[in-house]
Parts: sequence; structure tokens; C-alpha cells
Amino acid sequence: MAGEFDRIARYFAPLSGPEGLGLRDDAALLTPPPGVQLVLTVDQMLESVHFLPGDDPALIARKLLRRNLSDLAAMGAAPLGYLLTTALPVQTPESWLARFAEGLATDQARYGISLMGGDSSSSKAGIALSITAIGAVPQGAALTRAGARAGDEIWVTGTIGDAILGLKARLGEWTDQDGTLTSRSLLPTPRLGLALHGLAHACIDISDGLVQDLGHIAKASGLAATIQAAAIPTSPEAARFGDAALPERLTGGDDYELLLAVPPGHDAALRAACGAVPVTRIGQFTAGQGVRVLGGDGADLPLPRTGWAHF
Amino acid sequence: MAGEFDRIARYFAPLSGPEGLGLRDDAALLTPPPGVQLVLTVDQMLESVHFLPGDDPALIARKLLRRNLSDLAAMGAAPLGYLLTTALPVQTPESWLARFAEGLATDQARYGISLMGGDSSSSKAGIALSITAIGAVPQGAALTRAGARAGDEIWVTGTIGDAILGLKARLGEWTDQDGTLTSRSLLPTPRLGLALHGLAHACIDISDGLVQDLGHIAKASGLAATIQAAAIPTSPEAARFGDAALPERLTGGDDYELLLAVPPGHDAALRAACGAVPVTRIGQFTAGQGVRVLGGDGADLPLPRTGWAHF
Repeated sequence: MAGEFDRIARYFAPLSGPEGLGLRDDAALLTPPPGVQLVLTVDQMLESVHFLPGDDPALIARKLLRRNLSDLAAMGAAPLGYLLTTALPVQTPESWLARFAEGLATDQARYGISLMGGDSSSSKAGIALSITAIGAVPQGAALTRAGARAGDEIWVTGTIGDAILGLKARLGEWTDQDGTLTSRSLLPTPRLGLALHGLAHACIDISDGLVQDLGHIAKASGLAATIQAAAIPTSPEAARFGDAALPERLTGGDDYELLLAVPPGHDAALRAACGAVPVTRIGQFTAGQGVRVLGGDGADLPLPRTGWAHF
Repeated sequence: MAGEFDRIARYFAPLSGPEGLGLRDDAALLTPPPGVQLVLTVDQMLESVHFLPGDDPALIARKLLRRNLSDLAAMGAAPLGYLLTTALPVQTPESWLARFAEGLATDQARYGISLMGGDSSSSKAGIALSITAIGAVPQGAALTRAGARAGDEIWVTGTIGDAILGLKARLGEWTDQDGTLTSRSLLPTPRLGLALHGLAHACIDISDGLVQDLGHIAKASGLAATIQAAAIPTSPEAARFGDAALPERLTGGDDYELLLAVPPGHDAALRAACGAVPVTRIGQFTAGQGVRVLGGDGADLPLPRTGWAHF
């Protein structure tokens, strides 16, 4: 494998923008756009925890970047750029790195961002990766988890529970007829660019599972949340499994849809704000605490677990 | 071990400042101070690569933070805060995490910064850690590696080569009478707060080794660099080993002193800018390329290798 500096020059310097100073300096230099607040987030992906050893490095790169972009989307921020860390075993082939950089290049172009800096290291164990994403919101426009109010409706973008079924399909536990579910698991779509400021009181991206992430808003806002299972938007591919898949879909993570608290009576404005991205009302926040999921008969649905947590 | 959210609440939320939103949100929210540029850097530390399994977690935390602060210092920036990632094997005891957080708390207080956010994961292999540090410089005041000019003098802060001797002492290859060298290796001091703007043309922190890092400035500035071995500032502890230790000291990393390009005739101003931190002139930049180290007889000193690189 080429040396550290050669590798940076070959694979990563072409990805860097003006803030990266050619990746030859100690740090990146960012001039904040006027009137903004900066939004900063970091997520890691580790071999055998977040991806499987044989996964396509380009998809690993793109998912890592998109998971971070989704966190920016959840705060209502537009992305500015990112920092990358790689820790690779010495036997990692050049081709892995070339393909990884290819994935980053694809999504940099798609989202209009560039690499600002990073750190590379050898690893004595598996591959460890992290990205720090930097975004901007107009002053005071950031969405948080804590702003939901009693009476706010609960909305979600897109469809829920495809990614977990895709993962299970990859593990051989479910089937995936046309690859749609698998691709939702491998390559999420961050919901950037929705005009939610002044409309949503609170927002989170669904990374740990619908029930758990809804619980995060409820707890941060000091409220109870109730959703109707029948209202949860379901892709045609997930619909094939019927109610049998519902517990997995409610608690599986990795969908990266947005979960919103919106005051009643703003359906049209919300749909306009979301443009081509579908949004669906699934429930309501009320005084109290905890999360309830109601079945068709109005009774609470029992859930095996609430979502992903790393122990 | 406690669950992920309990662990964040117990160990990390107390370290978070206002930008961290209680570590309950998707990202941190930073209002840039007026008139500044932001400086962003990330460094990782991995078990068996950057630290040994039995090392004190508080010292690991502090070194990780300080390595990043040193990158900010090298750009002339003042630190604002940081993001943290941890990937820990499930069998990592609570006491490890408690001690790790204790180390962060100690240095947060020392450097006046707080935790803004992060990501925690389980690890199937060893411990993997990273910190993204965020700093600020007045608009246009950032120091880079590319600004050195022919005729500029080469200066360094502090003493050079103690950290590598300390590491070798820990590995049993050298002796360390009073622990000074070992502590230089375990706990570097970032050279923050020096008033170098308008004085230094270029700057880098010595993390990979004096010769290699000097080479980075020379290459980025399109110059040759020549230093006198006899001029290199030597601690009393390193002096005990005489010239036998010189090759190690010139190429060993981890000192985190600053290496500066300063135009001639500014000795007094430079010393005033550095306050209590000693600075020493060790050579000069000229037209050309490459790094030369001259011995007492004026002949080039042969060096076994130029410094650290991760392959």
C-alpha cells in the first residue's frame, strides 16, 4: 500500500475544497457565511458493527456521509463540508481506498460539498471510519428536539421501516424481490432542503427507529406521543409483509426519514415545504410522557424493543 | 455496562456546554464569534496504535484533546470546543469511561472549552477514539504551512525530542530517571495563545517529527530548509543521552512544539509574543528544496528515517 502522504494526495486531496487548504495543513479554515449559525455533527461506521466486511466501499462511504447529512437535515441546516477519519488495517488493498474515495466523490457532487480535512491512521483491528459534517442555518432557524408542544401533530417524511427489512433481507431473514429494501438499507436519502423553519416545532431524523426517536422528541419536549400504526407510511415492498413486519418496522433504525412536530392546520403549508418529498400525519403529542402505538382496534400495540442503542 | 443513553447522560452530558444542547439533539449549534474564521481539525487515537491497552484513560483523553488543540495552535487559533467519538468493546468497564471523562473534564477546565457533541458506538475490536476540535482566528490571521519565504529563520518552541525518548523509556529501550520524558510522551502541552500573527510567516506543530514536519513547511512553501543540530533545544533529561539520541530526537514525533518561519531581525518581538514559552532559532529557509541537518563539523547528518507516517 502507498504511504500515508501519497495516499492523501492521491485519493483525498482531489476531494478537498478551498477550506481544506489542499489537505496539507494542520486544520481546515472556514469563513462562516454571514448571519448563520453552524451545525456540527459526527458519526462513525465500524466494520462488523455498521457494515459487513464484504460491503462495497463506495456504498460505505456514501452511507457514512449521508448519515451525517441526515443529522444536518434534522436541524434544518444546509451542508457546507466535512472532515473524515480513516483507520485501515495495513493489508487493506489500494482498490478499497480507490472505491471508497469514488463513493465520496459521487455524493460530494450530489450534495454540493467538499472535503475540508481529516486524519488517517493504521488500525490493528478492523476498519474504523468517521465523518464530521458542518452545516449552516440562518440565525435562530435551527430545529431541535425540544420544541414540540401539546397538540402538535406528528408527521414523517417518506416511508418507514424499509431499511430494517433490507438489512434482514441481506442477512437472509426476509426476502427482497427487487432490491428496493436492500438499497434503502445501504444508501439512505438525507431529507435536506425542506423549508421547515417557522413550520415544524421539533424535528429528528429516524436513525434509531421510529418509536425510539419519537421518544427522544417526547422526552426532550416533556410530552407524550401517540401514533396510529395504520397511519404509518408503508412502501409497496414493505406492504407485502403485512402486519408481521410491523414491530420490526417501528423499531428498526436506518431509515433517515424526518420525524416532525407540526401544529394542527398546516397540512398544505407542510406539503408545500416538503415539495417532492411525501409527508404523512401519524399521530399527536399530548401532555404526559412516553410513546404509545395504537393498533386498528385502538389498543396499544406491544413492541419487542424500542430501537437501536450501542452498549 | 450501562446503556448508551445512560452513559451519555452520566459521563458526557456534564461535559457539554451550550452548543451541545445537552447532547440530546442531532447536532451541535455554534454561533460563530463575529469577525472570525473557524479552524477545524480531527485526530484519532486507537488502542495498540496510539496508546497501550493499560494506559490511564484520563491521560489518553487528555492527550487526544491536546493533540487536537495543538493543531489549532499551529494555525494560530483559539479553541472554542470539540466533538468526541468513542467506539468501545462491550467488556470495557464503567471505571474506564469514568476515568476517561475525568481526564476530559480536567483539560476542559484548563483550556476553557466544552464538549459540543459526538457519537458513541460499540466496537468489535479495540478502543477507537477521535476528537474534532473547533477554533477561531481573526479574519485573515490564520497561520499556514505555505507562507515561509527564502531568508526566513526557523524557530522552535520548547525542547525537541523528549516525547520519543519518553515513549522509548516506557518500552524499556531508554531510561527515564525522574519521569519527565515519560510525561512529555503521555501528556503534551499545546502551545496555544502565542501572539504569532503578523510575525510568523508559517507554522506547524511537531507531531510527526522535527525533520518531517519541517519538510512539510519547506515543501508547501517551495523552499529548502537547513537546521544546525547543535542549535536544537535540548531538555536536561534528553541531554543526558548526548548525541546518541539525536537521530531519534530529530525524527521522533509527539512533541507538539511549534515550528515557525520568522523573518530575520525579529528575535525580541518573537520572544515577547511567546511570553513564558522559550523559543530557539535553529536554522533558515533558502531557495531550493529538501531538509538538511548539519552536524558540528558543518557536514550533513545522516538520518535513519524522516518521521512517522501511518501505512
